[in-house]
Amino acid sequence: MSEQHFLHGFLNPKKSVAFYGANNKGGSLAAIQIMDLIKSGYDGNIYPIHLKLDSVMGFKAYKSLAEIPEIPDLVIIVLPAKVVPQIFKECGEKGVKKIILISGGFRELTDDRKNSLTEEICNIADSYGMRFIGPNCLGVFNNWYHPENEYSAFNIAIWEKLKKGNFSIASQSGTLSSHIWFDPSSVDVGLSKSLSVGNEANIDIVDCLEYYKNDDQTQVIGLYIEELKRGKKFLELAKEVTSTKPIVSIYVGGTEAGNRALQSHTGSLAGNSRLYDAAFKATGIIRTDYVQEFLDVALILSNGVLLKGNRLGIITNSGGPGAMIANNAEKKGLIVPEFSKSLQIELKEHLPSNASFKNPVDCAFDMDLPYFYITLPELLMKSGEVDAIIQYGVVGFQDVLDDFLNYEKIAKSAEFTNQPVEVVDNLAKKLVIPTVQNSRKYQVPILHVSPMPFNSPWSKRLRENGFLLFRLWDRPVNALAKVYEYVSYIQKSK
Amino acid sequence: MSEQHFLHGFLNPKKSVAFYGANNKGGSLAAIQIMDLIKSGYDGNIYPIHLKLDSVMGFKAYKSLAEIPEIPDLVIIVLPAKVVPQIFKECGEKGVKKIILISGGFRELTDDRKNSLTEEICNIADSYGMRFIGPNCLGVFNNWYHPENEYSAFNIAIWEKLKKGNFSIASQSGTLSSHIWFDPSSVDVGLSKSLSVGNEANIDIVDCLEYYKNDDQTQVIGLYIEELKRGKKFLELAKEVTSTKPIVSIYVGGTEAGNRALQSHTGSLAGNSRLYDAAFKATGIIRTDYVQEFLDVALILSNGVLLKGNRLGIITNSGGPGAMIANNAEKKGLIVPEFSKSLQIELKEHLPSNASFKNPVDCAFDMDLPYFYITLPELLMKSGEVDAIIQYGVVGFQDVLDDFLNYEKIAKSAEFTNQPVEVVDNLAKKLVIPTVQNSRKYQVPILHVSPMPFNSPWSKRLRENGFLLFRLWDRPVNALAKVYEYVSYIQKSK
Repeated sequence: MSEQHFLHGFLNPKKSVAFYGANNKGGSLAAIQIMDLIKSGYDGNIYPIHLKLDSVMGFKAYKSLAEIPEIPDLVIIVLPAKVVPQIFKECGEKGVKKIILISGGFRELTDDRKNSLTEEICNIADSYGMRFIGPNCLGVFNNWYHPENEYSAFNIAIWEKLKKGNFSIASQSGTLSSHIWFDPSSVDVGLSKSLSVGNEANIDIVDCLEYYKNDDQTQVIGLYIEELKRGKKFLELAKEVTSTKPIVSIYVGGTEAGNRALQSHTGSLAGNSRLYDAAFKATGIIRTDYVQEFLDVALILSNGVLLKGNRLGIITNSGGPGAMIANNAEKKGLIVPEFSKSLQIELKEHLPSNASFKNPVDCAFDMDLPYFYITLPELLMKSGEVDAIIQYGVVGFQDVLDDFLNYEKIAKSAEFTNQPVEVVDNLAKKLVIPTVQNSRKYQVPILHVSPMPFNSPWSKRLRENGFLLFRLWDRPVNALAKVYEYVSYIQKSK
Repeated sequence: MSEQHFLHGFLNPKKSVAFYGANNKGGSLAAIQIMDLIKSGYDGNIYPIHLKLDSVMGFKAYKSLAEIPEIPDLVIIVLPAKVVPQIFKECGEKGVKKIILISGGFRELTDDRKNSLTEEICNIADSYGMRFIGPNCLGVFNNWYHPENEYSAFNIAIWEKLKKGNFSIASQSGTLSSHIWFDPSSVDVGLSKSLSVGNEANIDIVDCLEYYKNDDQTQVIGLYIEELKRGKKFLELAKEVTSTKPIVSIYVGGTEAGNRALQSHTGSLAGNSRLYDAAFKATGIIRTDYVQEFLDVALILSNGVLLKGNRLGIITNSGGPGAMIANNAEKKGLIVPEFSKSLQIELKEHLPSNASFKNPVDCAFDMDLPYFYITLPELLMKSGEVDAIIQYGVVGFQDVLDDFLNYEKIAKSAEFTNQPVEVVDNLAKKLVIPTVQNSRKYQVPILHVSPMPFNSPWSKRLRENGFLLFRLWDRPVNALAKVYEYVSYIQKSK
């Protein structure tokens, strides 16, 4: 269905892309965008256009668009605003239908001449039947350009190779659509598509939402909004979308300094924060002020296991985090119910004598891993007494044990032996996969927390096998509470 | 001064330490604690006590304390509660004066027999003139045990080697005193000392605060509190301490589930959250519910540059983060003032035409690094118009440029050359050090944000030269607002 939408072509230029503004300076934006294309394995033709250079970034350069031997599917422009009308005309004459206008310097400067520049390019685009994204944007990213290839994408926006997923973004800030993905090692959310809409002179966030609504590769939607030009249309559409696909959104505005920043950013005049808040609530949009929370909410939602209520079960092997999680959860509208007597008895059977089992469950330090990772969560899940679980564990001990081997004297005396990689790999699978399956079976999401480095070998194994892992326990509580707002909206609107 | 305090000896056992409960199983707590000692370069004698083994973790084991050829400075016990009274007597007979009682299973189980166990060991300790930390604790850490040696410490609590610093912790949760330090790659706060006080049967958080008050190696104090046994004394002392050394504290309690968790954790009965809140405010303690914020506040404070007011300057090279920072800052009680006309003119002189300069300053994408890192912050600092700065920049581009070289065709055509490590090292120094110095000179803290990996080569260089770096911009805003609460308290109490 989404193939019919005009945005489809922006994300899937199969034959060729032309670039205005690329040169051989590595730090220039257009050069980096061409590198993004290459790194992501783009297999269409790349045509740099440059008045003087014969070759740009290793590609034959053309003096003008007219000289290019085909009509590019997409033209990308990174040149000063004042030359853009002329380029638009060249594009129109060539028969180009889609343009991404990266350049800033249009509406965000409060200068009548420049505002008329926006009008001018809109008129040119209309007269040739062209659509364009921008100005003042950072490009697009489509992780499903070649679905069969793990790290292939159509990408002029994000420096790194990203995990494929079902989370798609439309953003009035290039940072949100692009920069926040520059550290894949800290983000487990799989990205589907990302659209940086900039000033929305021709294509806006409503268009993106329409596209994502029917896109099978998009199941969760992230928005960054400074201003809604088609507010009524947006809210109607959002209400429709959230009934099947959750939306998490950052809305900036409402404070004096925030509005001043917006004026210079995309030139938008932000509305009243409370109005937006009320409107978002009424349409089931999850609103957050924090970019990390935006990503955390996306991670939980895109995992596909939605909690059914607000009862939180807590499992720890350390008291402090249990208490902090419980405390913050109740402050944020989650409930940490005391377990039924029968569940307490069941739990007590297996736990050490100094453990507690009322909720939070605290196993104390000594515990066996299969019991901690599999049995305990399953007991809670199948009890029907909780809707979600947060589990804190000091668990990176395979790495710790490996470290012992560096101290030969100790390793010998304590008879440690190095575990082969496959053994540890299998251990991780054995511990993680049953719980991931149980989470789906019982529809109870479980979020794991470990103080070990997020990229330690053991943490990586947990994540690769499907655990939703956080390094500390603040974020999962807050994100889960936000997700519950959506769940609660869906239940009420049924 | 702090050498006179009885806690000094717990952190500086120069001659020897004895361990009850260590064996050769790598996963056991006592074994890990001995490993902590070894890894941290402890150079006193280590005496494991074990009824059967001849050698533990590579050290000669003794059947009893009596057999050990000297009186250990410190005895550490990791054995079940029921055998502890007998061990305490043995310690008393031997002439031991200091014990760390790791074992749980005392007061946190609501069982009269076990509560009397606490009384019993307290009485034994008193009768022999012994002091003990615990029960139910995770040990101690002193990063200044050998000040001259970068990674040497007296340490039975933290697996990793940590940067030395001036932040000291006293905690009723072992997780806060210990686990949260298991990933040094994500934490730039330098740790001075850490005391896990557990159930506080003999030594409590007030003792710790007394010790830290006069400790020159402690300039910022972190507390985790579930219950205050000597509430009045604590508040008097805290008021005194905060006049020269800031305190950041997590207090857990006030929700039903939180209190249930506490009861099973350290057996404490938490008080009313609002009472604690009011008391903390009256004594200048910074309160937070979040462990990450606890660390962030500590980082800012331990850097030693305290903001003088709540006026925030924002510098970005991307609009979205500027707007979000401004928005959240004002929500949290900071002000993002519009700059004076004269400062705007000064800024405008150097910025590209599509930049904005009212506050936030947005340099747009193209900018030169010395101007971004040095000139702009200095203009703001010396203007007297801001009390703190948050700077967001897409800055890891040295790493990005290095990456270009992997694509030979491009590297050649664009004539890239690999920069030698020393050149990049020097570049980082040249960019960072003047701003760090200016921050001290003008007493305006500056927090940097970069979307690049926190441990990328370029990010590491920024951090190592003194930048306070954050990967996203949510945390610095929130932490700065918390620090301002303290500043505001100090100003009012003058």
